[in-house]
Amino acid sequence: MTEIVLNEPLDMHLHLRDGKMLQSVAPLSAYSFSGGLIMPNLIPPITDIDMLHSYRDRIKQAIGDEKFLPYMTLFFKSNYDRDFLASVSDEITAIKLYPAGITTNSEGGVQGFDIDELSPTLGAMSDLGIPLCIHGESSGFVMDREKEFIPIYESLARAFPNLKIVMEHITTANSVEALDRYENLYATITLHHLLITLDDVAGGMLQPHLFCKPIAKRPEDREALRRVAFEAHPKVMFGSDSAPHPQNAKEAPGCAAGVFTAPIALPALVTLFEEYGALDNLQRFVSDNAKAIYGINPPTKAVTLTKELMKVPQKYGEVVPMYAGEELSWSISSINY
Amino acid sequence: MTEIVLNEPLDMHLHLRDGKMLQSVAPLSAYSFSGGLIMPNLIPPITDIDMLHSYRDRIKQAIGDEKFLPYMTLFFKSNYDRDFLASVSDEITAIKLYPAGITTNSEGGVQGFDIDELSPTLGAMSDLGIPLCIHGESSGFVMDREKEFIPIYESLARAFPNLKIVMEHITTANSVEALDRYENLYATITLHHLLITLDDVAGGMLQPHLFCKPIAKRPEDREALRRVAFEAHPKVMFGSDSAPHPQNAKEAPGCAAGVFTAPIALPALVTLFEEYGALDNLQRFVSDNAKAIYGINPPTKAVTLTKELMKVPQKYGEVVPMYAGEELSWSISSINY
Repeated sequence: MTEIVLNEPLDMHLHLRDGKMLQSVAPLSAYSFSGGLIMPNLIPPITDIDMLHSYRDRIKQAIGDEKFLPYMTLFFKSNYDRDFLASVSDEITAIKLYPAGITTNSEGGVQGFDIDELSPTLGAMSDLGIPLCIHGESSGFVMDREKEFIPIYESLARAFPNLKIVMEHITTANSVEALDRYENLYATITLHHLLITLDDVAGGMLQPHLFCKPIAKRPEDREALRRVAFEAHPKVMFGSDSAPHPQNAKEAPGCAAGVFTAPIALPALVTLFEEYGALDNLQRFVSDNAKAIYGINPPTKAVTLTKELMKVPQKYGEVVPMYAGEELSWSISSINY
Repeated sequence: MTEIVLNEPLDMHLHLRDGKMLQSVAPLSAYSFSGGLIMPNLIPPITDIDMLHSYRDRIKQAIGDEKFLPYMTLFFKSNYDRDFLASVSDEITAIKLYPAGITTNSEGGVQGFDIDELSPTLGAMSDLGIPLCIHGESSGFVMDREKEFIPIYESLARAFPNLKIVMEHITTANSVEALDRYENLYATITLHHLLITLDDVAGGMLQPHLFCKPIAKRPEDREALRRVAFEAHPKVMFGSDSAPHPQNAKEAPGCAAGVFTAPIALPALVTLFEEYGALDNLQRFVSDNAKAIYGINPPTKAVTLTKELMKVPQKYGEVVPMYAGEELSWSISSINY
């Protein structure tokens, strides 16, 4: 095959940041995707409808004429008012929960996981059909954090059987196994966790541009992720977790966590899925599953990729992308609306 | 206790480098240690007696008047001539074996571990009483490399029961367990592996100055190392693996592996051993065990440390040390010969 068309590709976990960075990165996602689930971890986080409207307006301004729908989210708080959630349920696609301090701008997240304390918001979300997205990591040893969080996913899945819970950017075989144990558990998988293991981050020389949270795990974990991605398991969706930081914040001691993949995501996914004979399932992984899980109907957009080399730039603005300076086997050749 | 005297402290795994770096770092080790086992992984590696003499002379020139004995090593080759080894056995303290490509300047190391192929050199070493020091890592997944190497340690220990084999800079509970299974297995333990886990390298922000090979492992691995270090298990010795790289080689993508600890090692060890109530055993860990294992008699040197803050410099020359800019509870107050 030398050409593939992806219809309405969706990035269901996307950091667009704000200000100058938003201006720089939003058009890159908007070019190749039909829509994306926009993470609310700004400073301060998005917790009311005015902030959400304002952020959505800034995103729309940044993307200009591109046909791209930002699916907006609120930052989880345990004490959201039910009437408030009812009033905004048409304008938000999900609520994103961060354990406090677990990643970039998550300081205002949840401390501990007392289900009783979380119940007012979760009960309302369940009743209103608002999905819950979770960055599921404990504060334990870095290689164990996701595994240690699984009992919390399971408790929530049991306590709120009608609440759709998305395990965001899963990185372990344990999380893949949990998917099938509870009907209401779903997951996003990033590009980089399909590609790398801890070896790529710290096995040879140290590679800050591949340092992210959750950290890339073991080869057998990557295998488990690949298995469900390549078969387009109906409960998994593509979410890049594309997380831009300026080059100087990545290439210094105290390097920030995040891999910037938005502009190379589709060519890299096609390259990877082709290599493993899974191209026929990519449409489902990168769009159809998300449409079904979230019940969304993104703007029509047909992205054609051709088997011609993409030379990845060293930088997009101030941000160094994954595969900087390298070549991918596929490139975007046309976009049709 | 507010004062402790360490007699003839020894650093049994030390990288002094060469050229300008040697000039910069050698005096720092020579100041506080009575002697050190000098790693031979220069470019090219030390493989004959002229190179060894020349390197020893450069080290002596660099340390000047300090009373410090460099215990010299050769870089392992499988085809060393028995007569050659017999002729140099009084001038070398050990031979250091690197698997090919496993760490800095190890490209000329051993490919595969065919005991028959290694036997000429190992048999001669065994007969001549020359200890074998090994960087024991496979080329597997970064967290498994040391564990995967243990069967090789065991094969060597069985095949050459009279050969003293030192498992260098061990980092895992598995290696600690192997120590007691074979009479002729010994180990060095670094300062940094007693202090940090992978969490400190990549659990929060990425910390290139704590990136080393073998990489820091899990909390339970550190516990196992601490147990044998704090009890001064007779088969373990202190070896810093102090490995200086210029700041610009550490603080960039493709960061080199190595933690620079030589100038802070004794104050940090005293601080750590005091915290865990193990000060009484530090003399054995940092000197007596090594004397007994290697049968060496280093120059008399009494290093007195006092419970007064040591403010660690941001840099020593071009090199950023561990604990840069931080304070240790103990400092060296006097040296007596």
